[in-house]
Amino acid sequence: MPKTAAIVIIGNEILSGKVKDENSHFLARELRALGVALKEVRVIPDDLRVIAGVVAESSRRFDFVFTSGGIGPTHDDITMKGIADGFGLGTVTNEKLRELIERRCGHEPSDVVLRMAELPEGAEMMEIEGMSFPPVRVRNVFIFPGIPELLRKKFTAIREMFRCEPFALRCLYVNEEECFIAGALDQVAREFREVEIGSYPKMNETDYKVLVTMESRDPGRLESAFNKLLGLIPREIIVRTA
Amino acid sequence: MPKTAAIVIIGNEILSGKVKDENSHFLARELRALGVALKEVRVIPDDLRVIAGVVAESSRRFDFVFTSGGIGPTHDDITMKGIADGFGLGTVTNEKLRELIERRCGHEPSDVVLRMAELPEGAEMMEIEGMSFPPVRVRNVFIFPGIPELLRKKFTAIREMFRCEPFALRCLYVNEEECFIAGALDQVAREFREVEIGSYPKMNETDYKVLVTMESRDPGRLESAFNKLLGLIPREIIVRTA
Repeated sequence: MPKTAAIVIIGNEILSGKVKDENSHFLARELRALGVALKEVRVIPDDLRVIAGVVAESSRRFDFVFTSGGIGPTHDDITMKGIADGFGLGTVTNEKLRELIERRCGHEPSDVVLRMAELPEGAEMMEIEGMSFPPVRVRNVFIFPGIPELLRKKFTAIREMFRCEPFALRCLYVNEEECFIAGALDQVAREFREVEIGSYPKMNETDYKVLVTMESRDPGRLESAFNKLLGLIPREIIVRTA
Repeated sequence: MPKTAAIVIIGNEILSGKVKDENSHFLARELRALGVALKEVRVIPDDLRVIAGVVAESSRRFDFVFTSGGIGPTHDDITMKGIADGFGLGTVTNEKLRELIERRCGHEPSDVVLRMAELPEGAEMMEIEGMSFPPVRVRNVFIFPGIPELLRKKFTAIREMFRCEPFALRCLYVNEEECFIAGALDQVAREFREVEIGSYPKMNETDYKVLVTMESRDPGRLESAFNKLLGLIPREIIVRTA
């Protein structure tokens, strides 16, 4: 059974344009490679009520939810509390995490720093060998830090648990404007509902004008659809296929 | 009165990781410079019901909505119909647009191409000198293409209409882990509710470990908050201010 996912990026710094979100593109590529259908990305502010509402809604609608950001030691790191609120859960101090924090921040960290050890009730710190601060899971929500290097390392450590039926992909590069192939694409899209067809005009490519992608979980239907399209498009405008 | 905004990025190619969204970061920076508070970015698929639901909801919740993607001539370009559905509006052929399409695509474009000239009832093609295909506006929703070069050009042409009270910004670069300044940040955040304080650890900077940003629409309060923070943090870990 194909799985669906949503990404929730938490952070005022993304919304105010100070930091460019790199995590959603990384996760989108990873999820695609794993066969998981990403259905939504949402970037939201450091606001308890918004985090609670969006994470709980995403958890209901999709199989997996991946959050990024808001789990550090400062006043604006409120992701754990927001997720707990969204599920109607309290928070409890994770003793392992508390020890880690004390080791790193000295023996008398301030209250706001110790809040970093408070996880939603029932949260699981995933077991990963050699990783002192692994990803935290609450129900179908997987909680990651916003720092891209850390998110990549942590996601990579658990990625295989999400693998499901893969997507097959074919590409067609065309040296003509979109409107000249739109009729053919429409015809194939109507006949092959289970094949997803994308058409992407490029302004900065020298040897083609439009990239057409076709994808399906059914490789046989994909080949039929791709061959049908090749038969409908004038040979002289096809630059190459892949 | 400060204005709020949401960005809705429409496109399977972003969700499947084939294309990296560049538009939301560009718009986030522009909106911040204009004084508009961006409250949400949502990336959603080429799906009529999803587009209708998300755009209508965003239109109710925020002052401005900016959409990107899904307005070309192919089968997957369904943004206009989605927005019309979301507002309970029909679509009507825009004759000016139809002429443009016929000029560009030859005199007998296929039906799917001509659909590109169908705009939601009451949609306004904004008047911009020298621009043959200007942004389209429906109520408080501003509709842009997904191609970054075109979106930038079109947004830049109308950006001044969104300008409102600006944000003032101060920065502090610190050469110590976040947990050592978290208490001070928390104290200032509690005292200066109207100042937004961000704390961003960096892993790849050589001369500092954390960037602290403080922002407010009230420059006087911002200076007070910034000076308060400087007084609470040990001088020797401050690398520089800006």
